[in-house]
Amino acid sequence: MAVYTDVAAEELEAFLAGYDIGELLAYKGIAEGVENSNFLVHTSRGNFILTLYEKRVAAADLPFFLSLMEYLASRGITCPQPVKNRERAMLGQVAGKPAAIITFLDGMWLRRPAPGHCGALGAALAKLHRAGADFPGKRANSLSVEGWRPLYDAVAPRCDSVRPGLSAGLAAELAQLETAWPRNLPQGVIHADLFPDNVFFLGDKLSGLIDFYFACTDALAYDLAICLNAWCFEPDHSYNVTKGRSLLQSYAAVRTLSPEEKMALPTLARGAALRFLLTRLVDWFDERGSALVRRKDPLEYFRKLRFHQAVASVRDYGIDE
Amino acid sequence: MAVYTDVAAEELEAFLAGYDIGELLAYKGIAEGVENSNFLVHTSRGNFILTLYEKRVAAADLPFFLSLMEYLASRGITCPQPVKNRERAMLGQVAGKPAAIITFLDGMWLRRPAPGHCGALGAALAKLHRAGADFPGKRANSLSVEGWRPLYDAVAPRCDSVRPGLSAGLAAELAQLETAWPRNLPQGVIHADLFPDNVFFLGDKLSGLIDFYFACTDALAYDLAICLNAWCFEPDHSYNVTKGRSLLQSYAAVRTLSPEEKMALPTLARGAALRFLLTRLVDWFDERGSALVRRKDPLEYFRKLRFHQAVASVRDYGIDE
Repeated sequence: MAVYTDVAAEELEAFLAGYDIGELLAYKGIAEGVENSNFLVHTSRGNFILTLYEKRVAAADLPFFLSLMEYLASRGITCPQPVKNRERAMLGQVAGKPAAIITFLDGMWLRRPAPGHCGALGAALAKLHRAGADFPGKRANSLSVEGWRPLYDAVAPRCDSVRPGLSAGLAAELAQLETAWPRNLPQGVIHADLFPDNVFFLGDKLSGLIDFYFACTDALAYDLAICLNAWCFEPDHSYNVTKGRSLLQSYAAVRTLSPEEKMALPTLARGAALRFLLTRLVDWFDERGSALVRRKDPLEYFRKLRFHQAVASVRDYGIDE
Repeated sequence: MAVYTDVAAEELEAFLAGYDIGELLAYKGIAEGVENSNFLVHTSRGNFILTLYEKRVAAADLPFFLSLMEYLASRGITCPQPVKNRERAMLGQVAGKPAAIITFLDGMWLRRPAPGHCGALGAALAKLHRAGADFPGKRANSLSVEGWRPLYDAVAPRCDSVRPGLSAGLAAELAQLETAWPRNLPQGVIHADLFPDNVFFLGDKLSGLIDFYFACTDALAYDLAICLNAWCFEPDHSYNVTKGRSLLQSYAAVRTLSPEEKMALPTLARGAALRFLLTRLVDWFDERGSALVRRKDPLEYFRKLRFHQAVASVRDYGIDE
């Protein structure tokens, strides 16, 4: 659910006058993304998306995100593309917020992805990593290991209310990850939030990737660890090794995983689980947000974290070392 | 903000297989209407709306609403039309809820309507009343005078927390309206919720009316009173007589207002103000609803009610008796 800012028709018409995308016929706020306000914009030339960047997205990062989307599209990745206005700018302002017009991408996200879809995802993720290899932009991952302690400190006093002992458990995990975190893995552009709702399919064919607003420069294998967490567990929190194998094998068929990356995978998966557990706890305790955003269960990621803690090697995820 | 029910792609595909509207390419929850869940559905044949009827809309009333929309469209009123499936049915089921596919209507609602727009609205409302004159369906207005006392009883214990003395003030108003309510005015199909967000414009031209889910059989002039409340007050709650005159004169140019209707208008306007004040108070105190729906200020309608209480005759609204 995400329409934080209302936009008047006159204002949108004035904004679109700067673009060559036809005459405005209709627009509707859509429930997509949780960080920004999004509108479907219907013009005489078709459908577009208007995104208003709300304060959770740093304005200084917008050129990175938008130029990345353009760069990836030019290298064969199907993703929404920022539309340039008549002055060749990708970014303007609507209702006092930074705003962009983005192409409308057909496709639907899967509520219940099957192993085959995890395979399609793995291949697409590897292609994304290869396509982004020479992207000149850089953006540090503010939600990697250095960013977790401040999040932990913010939620620690209250998180035992969610589950007794959670605070101490997270403290121990965090200390261990800060020591064990792998620092020399191959780096590049990662999506960093490739959950099922950011991956579109038409039938069983993956048709595109969306929502690059967490994209950053980090270990490529960390992106894979995020996907393992987001795609390969069942609603009962059990790990589905068939899905995991499909994801990892399909990835490796497009981009070879080094022995170091494979060895690091359990640690990366623990880190990814901790990252989403921490941000979900922050959202859980944020009363202001609760009126607009459906809060997600933080303990889902606690259970995933426990699975990864018990993993002996990458074999437990379904592929050979 | 209204997407109460999530719909899986597979489920929507199966539902659409029953229709002849092309291949499903994308769908997105949209922030339109507060009673139902609405999705923009993009197919190879264009844009459509999928509406899931949530429990606030009585399933037994759906045939009335849908056949009314079809009837009005066949008589020249531009409004969304239910699309029939291959078995000629307008109503099916998605995610366990009654569901319909509705045509997508271009146009935008005005955040700041000007007097000219109020005139366009008046003419469209009168045309709607004329077009619906012979509609065979009947539906009692559950939110007319007989429906107000139960609402008042539900909010009375708490409404002084919104404004001291509100409970007693509403009790007096309600008692007076129950006695004075006019019962012999011309009746017919009314929209009953024709707020600015339910009236679409393209440029300055009124392009269509939407959201017939409060439509019912009631005094036609009561519909006009609802519009007076919804369109002719400024953000500072002052009555704009230029807008009121434009609305009423344009209405009367298409459908003559009888002397009895004009005489009743101040009472009808008080009733309309009380009706929205009461339902907004109910929503205000409904904690469950607060997570999903932006609650509207009930006191806006208290101030409008006070204006109408001071009105001596229809002249105060801007037209001759």
